[in-house]
Amino acid sequence: MSKFPFKSCRSALLFSGDVSNEPDPNFLQTAGCDVDGAILAWTKKEKVILTSKMNATKAESSFKGRVVSIDSIDLSKTLKAMLPNGRIGLDLSHITAARYLRLGKLMGRNRLVDISDDLDNLRRVKRKDEIAKIKKAVQISKSILSSLRLSPSMTELDVVRQLGLKCAERNVIFAYPPIVAAGKNSREPHHDPGPSHLGQGVVLIDFGVKYQHYCADLSRCYFLGPAKEERQKYEEAKKIHAAVVSAIPTFKTGGELGRFADEYSRKKLHWPRMLHSVGHGLGLEVHDPPHLGLKSKDRLQPGVVLAIEPGWYGKDYGVRYEDDLVIGKKKAQIL
Amino acid sequence: MSKFPFKSCRSALLFSGDVSNEPDPNFLQTAGCDVDGAILAWTKKEKVILTSKMNATKAESSFKGRVVSIDSIDLSKTLKAMLPNGRIGLDLSHITAARYLRLGKLMGRNRLVDISDDLDNLRRVKRKDEIAKIKKAVQISKSILSSLRLSPSMTELDVVRQLGLKCAERNVIFAYPPIVAAGKNSREPHHDPGPSHLGQGVVLIDFGVKYQHYCADLSRCYFLGPAKEERQKYEEAKKIHAAVVSAIPTFKTGGELGRFADEYSRKKLHWPRMLHSVGHGLGLEVHDPPHLGLKSKDRLQPGVVLAIEPGWYGKDYGVRYEDDLVIGKKKAQIL
Repeated sequence: MSKFPFKSCRSALLFSGDVSNEPDPNFLQTAGCDVDGAILAWTKKEKVILTSKMNATKAESSFKGRVVSIDSIDLSKTLKAMLPNGRIGLDLSHITAARYLRLGKLMGRNRLVDISDDLDNLRRVKRKDEIAKIKKAVQISKSILSSLRLSPSMTELDVVRQLGLKCAERNVIFAYPPIVAAGKNSREPHHDPGPSHLGQGVVLIDFGVKYQHYCADLSRCYFLGPAKEERQKYEEAKKIHAAVVSAIPTFKTGGELGRFADEYSRKKLHWPRMLHSVGHGLGLEVHDPPHLGLKSKDRLQPGVVLAIEPGWYGKDYGVRYEDDLVIGKKKAQIL
Repeated sequence: MSKFPFKSCRSALLFSGDVSNEPDPNFLQTAGCDVDGAILAWTKKEKVILTSKMNATKAESSFKGRVVSIDSIDLSKTLKAMLPNGRIGLDLSHITAARYLRLGKLMGRNRLVDISDDLDNLRRVKRKDEIAKIKKAVQISKSILSSLRLSPSMTELDVVRQLGLKCAERNVIFAYPPIVAAGKNSREPHHDPGPSHLGQGVVLIDFGVKYQHYCADLSRCYFLGPAKEERQKYEEAKKIHAAVVSAIPTFKTGGELGRFADEYSRKKLHWPRMLHSVGHGLGLEVHDPPHLGLKSKDRLQPGVVLAIEPGWYGKDYGVRYEDDLVIGKKKAQIL
C-alpha cells in the first residue's frame, strides 16, 4: 500500500462524489476504485472504505482493502473509533461546505485541515498506467475526429450526434459536452452547440472521450469553402502550440509556460492576450493539476500531462488548436 | 422576475458547477440558464450574473438580466459594491468548503447563512414546463428501452453500447451511467456493467436520459429463458409500485410514503427491508427533492415528481421496477 503522504495530519477522509454524479477524482486516485456515496478513511496503518450496505458487495469486489458497511447513524461512532487522535485531513476543494460543517461538529472544527493541495500534487505527476489510459483516450478521440464528415447543410447538433454515435460504437463516453461552433459562434470559446448550420467558414470542435476514467481534450478547426483568413489564423495557433511544445524542457513552472505562450503569441504574432490560459493539466479530470495561468507556481516535471490550446477570438470568428502531451525526461511527447 | 424568496438573508450568491463538470441544478433553476464558472448575485432588486470575459457573450445571449464581466481579481470589490449590507445566503450543499471559507474571509463568516433547504424547496414542486421536459425525457427513455434486443450471448457492455447508440441517434445523453446487471450481478443495486454475458435469467437495466437538463430514471427487468422465480419477484415489485401509486393522495410527507412501502412490502409480500429507499424526487438531478426515506418530513403535494423503485436483492439475483410519476390534484399520474 502507498505510504501515508500527508504531513499536516494523522488521518485523512475522502468522499466519493460529494456533490456531483461523477466520481470524485481524488477518491478514485486514492482508493483505486469508485464506490458511490462511500468514505475512504486513510491512516498510517491502513486504508478502509466505509459504505452503505447497498454498496458493500461492490466495494468488496473493487477495493483492495478493508470494507466496513455502516448505517449513517453509526458514522460518528465508527469514525471516532477508527481515526487516531490528532488532525484529520480533508479535501476542502471537493467536499461541500455542508459536509465540512457537519464534520466540524462531529470531530471538532480545530482538528480539520485542508489537504487539497497535497492531493492535487499527488495527481499532478502521472504513473505509467495513467499515461497509457490518457493516451488511449486521446487515440480514440483522434480517430473519431478524423472520421467526421462535415457539410455546409449540417447543423452543429448534427455534428454532436455524429460524435455521440461514434463514441457509443466504441463504448466510450464524452469527457465533457463537446463544443461545436460554426462561423460566428466560434467567437465564443465555450459555445453551446445549437441548430446553426455549418455553412461556409470555420467549424471549431472541442471534443474528447473518457477511457477508464481518464480524459482526452482536443480542439480542431475544420474549414468549409475558402475561409482564407480563418485558415491562416489556425496556422498561427498551431505555430504557438509547436513553440510551446519545443520550449517545454526549459519551463520549471506552469507560470513560466503560460508567460512564454503569452509573450510569443502577442509579440511574434500580434495576438491580443488570450481569453483563457494557454492550457491545463489533464487526467481524471479534464482540468487536472497543474495550472498554467500566468502566475501559476505549479511545478512541471516528467510525468506531467498537459492539454495546450492556444485560441484566438475575433469579431467574426474564432480558432483554437488543442493537442495533449506528456512531459518526458528530455522533451515533451504529443499523445 | 421571480420574487426574492429567502427570509434569512438580504442577498444570495449561487455558483455554477463549483465542483462538478455538470451544471449546478440550483444555479440552472434560479438563473434559467447555465454559464460555466459564473456567479449569480440575487438581491431584492435584481439578478445579476458575474462571469469571466471568456463567457460574457454566452451569458448575455442566454440570461434574461444584467451580465457583469469580471476578472477574478475584482471579485471582492464587485461583490462588496453589489450586495446590500446584512446576511448573504449560500447553497452550502452545492458549494465547496474551500469556496465557503474564502467567502467567509472576504465578506465575514457571520454574514453567511445556509439557504440550501430553501433552494431544495423551490425545486421540489415543478412548474408545468419542467414537468413537460421530464415527461419528454421519460418518453424517450421508454422508447429506447422498448426497442432493445437482448440475447444470451450479448454482454452487459454490449447493452450499454446499444443504449448509447440509441441515445446518440436521438441527440440525448445519459442522465447517469446506465446499470446493466445480468444474473448474479443483479444482486448489487448499483452494479457497474462489465463483460459478463447475459446468459439465462434476469437482466436488470436502470437507465434514463436527460432532455434539456431534465432527467428520467427507469428500471426494468428482462428475462432470458424460464427464470420463473425471477419473473415472480418482478411481479411483486410491480405490485408494490402500483400500491404506492394508488395510495399517494393519502401521503402528506415523503416519510409517510416510505413507511407505507416498507410496511406493504414486508407484511404483504414478506420482503426483507429494502436496501435503498423506495424512491426519490426527480428533475434537474436524478435525485431531486423530496426525500422518501422512512424519516423524511419533506412535503408531497401536486407538482412533485417522483421515481418509485421497489427493489428486492437475494442471494442469486435481484429485481427492481422503477417508473416515474407526477402528483396531481386528485391522483398520481405515471409519466
